[in-house]
Amino acid sequence: MAADSIVPDVVLAIHGGIGLDKKDMTPELAVKIRADLETSLKAGYAVIAKGGDSLDAVQAAIVVMEDSPLFNAGKGAVFTHDGRNELDASIMEGKTKRAGSVAGVTTIKNPILAARAVMERTKHVMLIGAAADGWAKSTGLEIVDPKYFWTEQRWNQLQEQLRKEKEHRDHGTVGAVALDQRQVLAAGTSTGGMSNKQYGRVGDSPIIGAGTYADNAACAISATGHGEYFIRHAVAHSIVDLMKYKGVPVNEAADEVIQRTLKPAGGEGGVVCLDHRGNFAASYNTDGMYRGYITRDGRVQTLLYEE
Amino acid sequence: MAADSIVPDVVLAIHGGIGLDKKDMTPELAVKIRADLETSLKAGYAVIAKGGDSLDAVQAAIVVMEDSPLFNAGKGAVFTHDGRNELDASIMEGKTKRAGSVAGVTTIKNPILAARAVMERTKHVMLIGAAADGWAKSTGLEIVDPKYFWTEQRWNQLQEQLRKEKEHRDHGTVGAVALDQRQVLAAGTSTGGMSNKQYGRVGDSPIIGAGTYADNAACAISATGHGEYFIRHAVAHSIVDLMKYKGVPVNEAADEVIQRTLKPAGGEGGVVCLDHRGNFAASYNTDGMYRGYITRDGRVQTLLYEE
Repeated sequence: MAADSIVPDVVLAIHGGIGLDKKDMTPELAVKIRADLETSLKAGYAVIAKGGDSLDAVQAAIVVMEDSPLFNAGKGAVFTHDGRNELDASIMEGKTKRAGSVAGVTTIKNPILAARAVMERTKHVMLIGAAADGWAKSTGLEIVDPKYFWTEQRWNQLQEQLRKEKEHRDHGTVGAVALDQRQVLAAGTSTGGMSNKQYGRVGDSPIIGAGTYADNAACAISATGHGEYFIRHAVAHSIVDLMKYKGVPVNEAADEVIQRTLKPAGGEGGVVCLDHRGNFAASYNTDGMYRGYITRDGRVQTLLYEE
Repeated sequence: MAADSIVPDVVLAIHGGIGLDKKDMTPELAVKIRADLETSLKAGYAVIAKGGDSLDAVQAAIVVMEDSPLFNAGKGAVFTHDGRNELDASIMEGKTKRAGSVAGVTTIKNPILAARAVMERTKHVMLIGAAADGWAKSTGLEIVDPKYFWTEQRWNQLQEQLRKEKEHRDHGTVGAVALDQRQVLAAGTSTGGMSNKQYGRVGDSPIIGAGTYADNAACAISATGHGEYFIRHAVAHSIVDLMKYKGVPVNEAADEVIQRTLKPAGGEGGVVCLDHRGNFAASYNTDGMYRGYITRDGRVQTLLYEE
């Protein structure tokens, strides 16, 4: 349940959702998840190390997790109550505050690329639904049959939830935050939503200020958790404002929101945060949060629970 | 361009969008708009005066403006580039931070009622697109043929914009903020979007933290303007945080965001804000903003420009 303390000299950090309760994790699955987290970190780090943009690093890291069936985003997206896969994603850059977002898309292989394209190829920040799918296709993004997102594991999960007639607390999401050599922060988040959710429901992941925010004057944040609480408390933006207006360090700002605001309200989840000096902090009020970071000199750390 | 100073003892305030440039306003139209603003204020005031909830007051005030063809919300919604009417709305209560929102709906007569219903009848905050329309119908909300939203004035406006091949700066929106006798704040916003916009684009109006926010520890806000800027700067939530973390009064917080953050960035628009003591402030960086307020003793004021 505790937060991590600050880790300095980080250039990229990611999360892969709050994941399974610790008692349900197997050593075999843990190895697989940590391997994909490491692949994601290295994909983003390659961008930063060669002097690339934090936006590109965030995107590269998230695409790896979207393409993995182990995380609730892209390929591994959970199902809605009526058996659909609906995906949401957002991305933001902390210097100019440019941002892009898509929600409720069903055919875009990598929603984070669509969010980036909305940011760069339209005058808008957010596109939703079939209009977003159609637009993504017209811009040349990779389109897949909705069946691409069907995985046996997620389908079985939905069937079990339907039998039990309850919503599983599977608030999986993936996200990344990065700081490039020009000292520009970026953040991005991508999700398959909440398993067994109502069709058309949108959580915090595509909402700038809730699931994603980046401000060079403070930090970059990506969140995962029970999206409704993260929207109502504008979680990502709150962490930025605590740093900007109260002058607290990034780990205290993250704890203030995750442990002392969300937790008493019943909002489960966590955040990864990277400030403009390269200080990384994670905070989560759940059993665990799949996460990792990579430092300027390429040192990789992955964590699933308190370790 | 200037902001209004604080007006004390206000129980309800509304806006009807940034509206026409002053040079395009006629005395006849000004009379009609002010009459509808007054009707809206009195509808909300009736709720507060009899001890009702601020949420009900916000809703009552907004329904009047949604039903008027003079504002870009509900009946008077503008058209997208391809000739559709897409509507967005959100509502929030400042004590418990409950919130509801719909985006991209096309058949719900009063989107603000759908936002309220999402808040109260689902576990979610935000529903989008056809799923939101279908759900609203199933809950018994009034559904209309999309042709209901066709008005000659808005259609001609789109045709003119298509001829000129440019987007009109018509960022109309309606909104309300209220404080009830139990000292609970609420805010709501409703819009027909941006005229000639890309199909599927969502602006700030349905985004909690951008177009709408309410926090009993600070104030309630409804925004109108160029939504992309309002999302990227999390306008409504920023005003709340400036009050909470820097201790500035409501009018200074509003000016800080609208005049000193948005205006230099090129973000046109404004806000109405009501703090938990009943202090009302408006700030806009455009020619005008249709707005009004009503005090505890029933005194009505409506304004279109600096007056």
